[in-house]
Amino acid sequence: MNRFNAYVEANAERFIEELKEFCRQPSIVAQGIGLEEMGQLVRARLEKLGAEVRLMPVDDGPPVIYAELGRGQRTLLLYNHYDVQPPDPLDLWDSGPFDPRIREGKFYARGVADNKGDLLARLQAIEAYQATLGELPLKIKCVFEGEEEAGSPHLASFAAEHAELLAADGCLWETGHKDESERPTIALGLKGIMYLELRAHGAKSDLHSSLATIVPNPAWRLVWALSTLKDEDDNILVDGFMDHAAEPTAAEMEMLAAIPFEEEKMRANFGIPHFIRGLTGLEALKKHLYEPTCTICGLKAGYIGEGGKTVLPNTAMAKLDFRLVPNLEPDLVVNLLRQHLDKRGFSDIEVVPISGLHSAKAPPDAPIVKAAIVAAQAVYGQEPVVYPLMASSGPMYPLTQALGIPAVAAGVGHPGSNLHAPNENVRLEDYFQGIRFVGELIRRFAAS
Amino acid sequence: MNRFNAYVEANAERFIEELKEFCRQPSIVAQGIGLEEMGQLVRARLEKLGAEVRLMPVDDGPPVIYAELGRGQRTLLLYNHYDVQPPDPLDLWDSGPFDPRIREGKFYARGVADNKGDLLARLQAIEAYQATLGELPLKIKCVFEGEEEAGSPHLASFAAEHAELLAADGCLWETGHKDESERPTIALGLKGIMYLELRAHGAKSDLHSSLATIVPNPAWRLVWALSTLKDEDDNILVDGFMDHAAEPTAAEMEMLAAIPFEEEKMRANFGIPHFIRGLTGLEALKKHLYEPTCTICGLKAGYIGEGGKTVLPNTAMAKLDFRLVPNLEPDLVVNLLRQHLDKRGFSDIEVVPISGLHSAKAPPDAPIVKAAIVAAQAVYGQEPVVYPLMASSGPMYPLTQALGIPAVAAGVGHPGSNLHAPNENVRLEDYFQGIRFVGELIRRFAAS
Repeated sequence: MNRFNAYVEANAERFIEELKEFCRQPSIVAQGIGLEEMGQLVRARLEKLGAEVRLMPVDDGPPVIYAELGRGQRTLLLYNHYDVQPPDPLDLWDSGPFDPRIREGKFYARGVADNKGDLLARLQAIEAYQATLGELPLKIKCVFEGEEEAGSPHLASFAAEHAELLAADGCLWETGHKDESERPTIALGLKGIMYLELRAHGAKSDLHSSLATIVPNPAWRLVWALSTLKDEDDNILVDGFMDHAAEPTAAEMEMLAAIPFEEEKMRANFGIPHFIRGLTGLEALKKHLYEPTCTICGLKAGYIGEGGKTVLPNTAMAKLDFRLVPNLEPDLVVNLLRQHLDKRGFSDIEVVPISGLHSAKAPPDAPIVKAAIVAAQAVYGQEPVVYPLMASSGPMYPLTQALGIPAVAAGVGHPGSNLHAPNENVRLEDYFQGIRFVGELIRRFAAS
Repeated sequence: MNRFNAYVEANAERFIEELKEFCRQPSIVAQGIGLEEMGQLVRARLEKLGAEVRLMPVDDGPPVIYAELGRGQRTLLLYNHYDVQPPDPLDLWDSGPFDPRIREGKFYARGVADNKGDLLARLQAIEAYQATLGELPLKIKCVFEGEEEAGSPHLASFAAEHAELLAADGCLWETGHKDESERPTIALGLKGIMYLELRAHGAKSDLHSSLATIVPNPAWRLVWALSTLKDEDDNILVDGFMDHAAEPTAAEMEMLAAIPFEEEKMRANFGIPHFIRGLTGLEALKKHLYEPTCTICGLKAGYIGEGGKTVLPNTAMAKLDFRLVPNLEPDLVVNLLRQHLDKRGFSDIEVVPISGLHSAKAPPDAPIVKAAIVAAQAVYGQEPVVYPLMASSGPMYPLTQALGIPAVAAGVGHPGSNLHAPNENVRLEDYFQGIRFVGELIRRFAAS
């Protein structure tokens, strides 16, 4: 890989210019801005590699860019997205979100960490491979969608529809990062999620609160219903829910034990004296990665301004998310919740599903996992930290596990990358290491 | 009283012009608009009656207009206010809120029902009395404040400071109305209120909801704390709270039994199939007037916009009001609530008092009550509906019961008066009946 590395070094300036070009182009899915132009940039970059590219339409959304290149025994699937989050609040950016700037070794722009940097680093790694080591030793399939930041509304149906086309031996998921101690991380999966609203209804309009004597108050109905869902020790009480939560396997527990867990730094960052249940160490980490959640993300009823307004609200709403460990499926959660509420006399509480995603995980012994670990060891000169599961969620399942494709997540971010926030950035050093990691992964995975 | 009535009729047009002049002058305490000008109008109108008028300053607020006139054995206190609610939303008014108009027998303007109509009707009644029956047969003391719509922040200290000056045998409280069946109403008291916020705090900022596994969520703390305050049968569970709630006396139960209670019409208006606990008839009315409440007026935490945002909130807030029957005092409620929460491990939940008012009631056999009833019988030609207590609250206690002055509330409103709302109005017929009622009350109370 020496020639590969030398090529990357020799072309560093052009690679950064290409990244600037990608990041100068807004592609904000929430506002429908620039997605077509961004798609054309990505397509052109792929064609420059000799890939066969197809823009595959989805209903009412930006197309999936599908590309194939290379040949070999193995097939590697690359999943990325070419849309970005809105740049607001603009006044907190030190330079324009679509005016890429380099300051103190960091490249600042909206989307550079999520997900244009990873997308382009992968294409530049392919270029370097072709330029220095010759033909790709495996087949690469790219699935680059344009609406990940809108919740990937069409990815599941796209994946199901094109299962044969997408067949692969392993997938490199969109992104990843070094941890607080500069260790590279590799994640083998993520939690699912079910996001929903509970809505309670009362009189046909808000009333004067003196009528609270005789007119039912939906805010109380909501509070009583919520209080049956979780107890003060953070146990989820929804009937049958915990029966479906898979415990970590012995192998996974070993992986957990190997994860450095900066708990004191975390508590200080969050400004909290203790974690829930006073947990520390491996017990806290195990709860974090292997317990599902039932979280009130939002509460609204009645008057919420300054001072007092004596109103009897006629509606009350809670937004809940359930983070789901393996075996807990989004639809199942909605059904269990509905039954739980009905059984306790809360049939009047409406359950409104907003969105759901499955959890996904790759077996630790999958070839793509092994290849990613050895590639990381080679490039970073140290053991990567391997997460069997991430606590967050994403559209991984339908494109990977559902198609029998194990996936790993790794990428060019760092803890200060400010994903979804102002001054999003990647460090140049991480970026070039990321290119080299992809080169190594191609080589190791093809040979495995 | 025939001459009195003839005088009112002969001067009807001028009386309405005076009411227009009052209502043309904005006097919005929330916005600090026009209070001085309004105060001068009221002062001038009082001086025209020959009253001795003093503008008595309060800290950082519009002055209390204090006036005395007449002489006799008895002293009648008149309480009114010269400020009004903001006129918003302006687009829902059919004519300008400060451009008084008469349409189909109704006088439309902000403040005409609350409380300029009652204030002026009382002064015009005094004029008519003087012009037709001679010297007033009792002493009248007027207390007209300018910040009732801001919660009367200075009335209690004003009353306590001027107890001797304000001494009286009875008080006519600011306002009142006919009921849905055109019966005049007289109220002998009202509930108190304690309005407060419960606030729960978590991490130092909102976090990604994937951290809900280990970082405490203040929205859950708030829900758990709230769920200890009231059960699903609407029983208030705050330790010791109900021990302080006075039951209605036998005499009050008789008054309740005599009140026509339009329960089906109410439920239809509110759009609810049942009252709380399925109560009907006298039981519902008794709960409405003689049970305290614990009401969630507002709930807020985290993300409350459209769709999903997976946030772990760092604060959560509930606004509560407790409507208080006699013996339940605002400070007591705050103390009981604090103790209740502490005892259950909710010392982290902050209790923030916003405002409190005592309940107040006049004994049914007080001379002012008897005089008001016979005056109503004479003017309206039917029995008035007597409410021992109103379900709503107001600053009655410090100015009346605390000074040993029984008060009755009666006035010129009707069920469609739109208090605090667009198209506030009084019916001209009710207005002139109200003037005659005050004339009768002066005569009957002086003679009693």
